[in-house]
Amino acid sequence: MRGPGMGKAVSPLKPAHLPQMPDIAGVRLASAAAGIRYAGRSDVLLVTFPKGTSVAGVFTRSKCPSAPVEWCRARIGAGRARALVVNSGNANAFTGKTGRQATQMTAELAAKAVGCRPAEVFLASTGVIGEPLDAGKFAGVMHELAAGAAPQRWVDAAEAIGTTDTFPKLASAAARLAGAAVRINGIAKGAGMIAPDMATMLAFVFTDAPIVPGALQALLARAVVDTFNAVTIDGDTSTSDTLLAFATGAAAAAGAPTIARASDRRLAEFRSALQDVLGSLAEQVARDGEGASKLIEIVVEGAVSKRSARKIALSIANSPLVKTAVGGGDANWGRIVMAVGKAGEPADRDRLSIWFGDIRVAHKGARDPSYVERDVAAYMKRHEISIRVALGLGGGRDRVLSCDLTKEYVAINGDYRS
Amino acid sequence: MRGPGMGKAVSPLKPAHLPQMPDIAGVRLASAAAGIRYAGRSDVLLVTFPKGTSVAGVFTRSKCPSAPVEWCRARIGAGRARALVVNSGNANAFTGKTGRQATQMTAELAAKAVGCRPAEVFLASTGVIGEPLDAGKFAGVMHELAAGAAPQRWVDAAEAIGTTDTFPKLASAAARLAGAAVRINGIAKGAGMIAPDMATMLAFVFTDAPIVPGALQALLARAVVDTFNAVTIDGDTSTSDTLLAFATGAAAAAGAPTIARASDRRLAEFRSALQDVLGSLAEQVARDGEGASKLIEIVVEGAVSKRSARKIALSIANSPLVKTAVGGGDANWGRIVMAVGKAGEPADRDRLSIWFGDIRVAHKGARDPSYVERDVAAYMKRHEISIRVALGLGGGRDRVLSCDLTKEYVAINGDYRS
Repeated sequence: MRGPGMGKAVSPLKPAHLPQMPDIAGVRLASAAAGIRYAGRSDVLLVTFPKGTSVAGVFTRSKCPSAPVEWCRARIGAGRARALVVNSGNANAFTGKTGRQATQMTAELAAKAVGCRPAEVFLASTGVIGEPLDAGKFAGVMHELAAGAAPQRWVDAAEAIGTTDTFPKLASAAARLAGAAVRINGIAKGAGMIAPDMATMLAFVFTDAPIVPGALQALLARAVVDTFNAVTIDGDTSTSDTLLAFATGAAAAAGAPTIARASDRRLAEFRSALQDVLGSLAEQVARDGEGASKLIEIVVEGAVSKRSARKIALSIANSPLVKTAVGGGDANWGRIVMAVGKAGEPADRDRLSIWFGDIRVAHKGARDPSYVERDVAAYMKRHEISIRVALGLGGGRDRVLSCDLTKEYVAINGDYRS
Repeated sequence: MRGPGMGKAVSPLKPAHLPQMPDIAGVRLASAAAGIRYAGRSDVLLVTFPKGTSVAGVFTRSKCPSAPVEWCRARIGAGRARALVVNSGNANAFTGKTGRQATQMTAELAAKAVGCRPAEVFLASTGVIGEPLDAGKFAGVMHELAAGAAPQRWVDAAEAIGTTDTFPKLASAAARLAGAAVRINGIAKGAGMIAPDMATMLAFVFTDAPIVPGALQALLARAVVDTFNAVTIDGDTSTSDTLLAFATGAAAAAGAPTIARASDRRLAEFRSALQDVLGSLAEQVARDGEGASKLIEIVVEGAVSKRSARKIALSIANSPLVKTAVGGGDANWGRIVMAVGKAGEPADRDRLSIWFGDIRVAHKGARDPSYVERDVAAYMKRHEISIRVALGLGGGRDRVLSCDLTKEYVAINGDYRS
């Protein structure tokens, strides 16, 4: 693995400034350098929660998941969390029995330091696959982490979980829950091996809203559909993709009611805020795709269904030929046609229209005679490219985010492990 | 489009020498420079056949096929061909009504020059998508082509149909059909936008064996499964993929019987020879993948079925992270695990074994403790890399070919159209 990702050339698509991250009552964070793989940077994060905190999670659909994913899956049903431990540098994936022992040991160390049961500790690991994770290294830092955990450490937390990320990913939103103010904070890390489902390797959201685990799970599962699951960097799904949501319930003190069902109408604002936080984190993941120089938004409309539109949009978003063309500033709409055609979904060439930004380059199955190459060439120089495809068949619409494929992606991934 | 592909740096994976291409009785070839897009190179090929020649074809499954694909599909059922016209430089895809007119005009020009009906002319075009094809340019060369067509022009033919190919792709095999000698020649072009199904943009095979169209079609459809359909360069399926087979029947004069059914036992040698020709052409396509520096063979065994093994093999073959790692000489088996996991097919992490060449790097769900990094690093320096994955679940086995993903691929495709 190349050195600490944060030391690399920063993505040109990095957001202009970090968001304000308020405290989330009951959530405390601390990070440290355990020396898992990197030298001179933090690589372990501990987050602690008060008793009664709800937890929900969405995980990779990989048939070869990591040991921490299996650990979380086995415990998410109980719905209660007191701690989260995340390390970078080693994914603890494809590590067999050793990997399971490492998760057990990590959870026991954290449980002892925090004062809870190991089953209330949730785990995530990111980094190289197939190397044993030496969980013993956490022993030296866990008590210090628990003792030093504080409400403000959001940026440190986001940095500790990064690998080839070039900037920390944070988002925050506020909502009112039956008149009481509640908050949602989130952190995430990318930056390669990013594809649905899930779209990011690791993301964590935290709220003070009082929501029971089952409702939190339903809210989370719904919110990923058009956020993390609508982002793809390279079509490669990680063994470790993990999204966990923690709800401390501390806002009850300010009058927030306890929410028992995801269909509760009082959740309207919260649902929207959760979508905003996940959407922002997912976009930041695309903005920090390995080697990315352009953020690509793909909108497909007029498909026979949303599902069909999603499949076509992903076919475009994952096409190496589309991604290299955008990277080269080439409005190569022929490759968009190719990607629509290979998706296998209903499409009628002679009804197809394609736009780059506001410029329609193809209409009803042929080049739009009115478009000016110079205008579209100027548009393609931007850092943010929007591609819109209208199929003219029905009302199905979808949007996904991706990034271009560059020589830097090849360079980063040609010498990642060695 | 960058200039004539043949002028580029030649792939390091190019076969050491061109195969001997015998005459195929009845088949005559000629190429010329019609000035479709390139300057100073041939870009149109005419092949003529005697009366009674059978034709069969397999085409792209793209929902947005090119005009020539639609032309051929509409006429392949009649099973008879007198001429084949192929141009490079323009794919005549997504060209609407103009595209249909261009195919009609091309077929009429060729029919007039050859002395047949337009419906007996088969067409293929490769090159840029979405630009009108000026078929009028063929008018100036068609009679000269028909007059000059000769049996020996195989290398010229293969060169005329190339785009970003860096070497001409030819293959030949001989077989005995009920004691009589028959021959099969084939030519193909790659080199990007290559994925099942079909795996190549254009390939043509020619035989003097007397085989009726229906039997030829069945033979061809079966032969592509483990040849062209088992090759992927970048997972992008072209709008133009076309494989046509022509059987002149001229070997009847040497005593070859007319074959009416693909199940005829006398076809055993022919079937094997056809498989060899298609297999060789498909491998040459992989060897000339855009920017390729390494040929990658992926063998998956122990899957629940051949179909499942194919899906897993393609997941590995199309993974940008696997392809960049191989390009960088990194035996990153963790990414193989990732690609197995994301295929969505039955796989049990704890039974998985992975080899690079003869070196087992992972066994039963963990790193193989006996493998020596130095040995595998030395293996990865080769031009031909074999990756084998054993799932330990059943008897399903499959093999696909691919190539690595390099900065040159990005460079070639970042400025293809402009």
